Amino acid sequence: MAMKLYGYFRSSAAFRVRIALNLKKLDYENAAIHLRRNDQTKPDYRAVNPQGLVPTLDDGGRTLIQSLAIIEYLDEVYPDPPLLPSHPAERARVRALAEIVACDIHPINNLRVLRYLTHSLDHDETAIATWYNHWIDAGFQALERLLVGDPRTGTFCHGEAPGIADIALVPQVVNAERYRLALAPYPTIARIHQSCMALEAFATAHPDRQPDREA
Amino acid sequence: MAMKLYGYFRSSAAFRVRIALNLKKLDYENAAIHLRRNDQTKPDYRAVNPQGLVPTLDDGGRTLIQSLAIIEYLDEVYPDPPLLPSHPAERARVRALAEIVACDIHPINNLRVLRYLTHSLDHDETAIATWYNHWIDAGFQALERLLVGDPRTGTFCHGEAPGIADIALVPQVVNAERYRLALAPYPTIARIHQSCMALEAFATAHPDRQPDREA
Repeated sequence: MAMKLYGYFRSSAAFRVRIALNLKKLDYENAAIHLRRNDQTKPDYRAVNPQGLVPTLDDGGRTLIQSLAIIEYLDEVYPDPPLLPSHPAERARVRALAEIVACDIHPINNLRVLRYLTHSLDHDETAIATWYNHWIDAGFQALERLLVGDPRTGTFCHGEAPGIADIALVPQVVNAERYRLALAPYPTIARIHQSCMALEAFATAHPDRQPDREA
Repeated sequence: MAMKLYGYFRSSAAFRVRIALNLKKLDYENAAIHLRRNDQTKPDYRAVNPQGLVPTLDDGGRTLIQSLAIIEYLDEVYPDPPLLPSHPAERARVRALAEIVACDIHPINNLRVLRYLTHSLDHDETAIATWYNHWIDAGFQALERLLVGDPRTGTFCHGEAPGIADIALVPQVVNAERYRLALAPYPTIARIHQSCMALEAFATAHPDRQPDREA
């Protein structure tokens, strides 16, 4: 039975899982949950994922939520190619790089938070864009220093093969580009992003190449 | 060589790592980084952790950052008692429960975000408290449904032994109590919190019992 991924073309968290599935060459059916139309709040989807967020992955009847947990699961069940190094200290480095994006940038800039700022706190588009770029910049500054100052950084965040850190980073860079954040202050991030996007697994996971994409 | 934990009594992320160290019975030296006085932005600490957040764990010269990555590292290097189940699907469940807190509640309510809302966006204490409780409630509603609706939930989030999900949950409940959020709508969360706090490993990790605590 093929897997089924409940996602949204523009969700970075869904984008991460698409990359992981592609790297593992796992087929999946795409179930689009239109976040801007609030499909995620409807009873049908809440029955699948009570949190009402995307992505959710159904692997043969197992319902998995939270993108990093899903990717760790995929790496444990379908270990080839590995998305984490083998030594615990190296694994910790890769997970930490991923979590800087997944915990400290992305959630603060998520659609539901931007909506709260707009609708409950009455902020305008300029204030939202400043907020958005502020948190990306804080995270990217840290990531850039951690990447450039460490000999373990290679073509990718950790060595010569893409892994969980790259999977978290690329969707965040794509978001930054959408908000026209200049990448010049983060040359290592920009270089790694290019290395990733040269790979089919990353390129075909891009929001613009999803069946549910919109202008 | 004992480990050294750079933390802050009130940081939930440091609280998580303290619990994990206690559960594993690992000794550590406490290095207090006073977040409200901005010790985390000083060059000395930035040299340890370029992201300027807590916690950082030094394990015999290995510098580890990001609380969940640190806890996974501890679980891999010091496997007894385990903080994750053994089956991948079970591990995914526990990680997802932890990430609902660590990705979707905590970062949005972090000190630096509340400061941005106060100083850059001019919101008052009432608006901040509403914001704070809004995101806890959204996450706790989801967690409560995921816990109450799943036979794998036991005395703790997953079965009869505490693990990573409980480690993430307890500091968030302590924060909720601090902001006087009523726990009545989340009876399973409240019950699990009580089970955890009855354990020495959780109780001694509480902010009020840290050497750097303040009123």
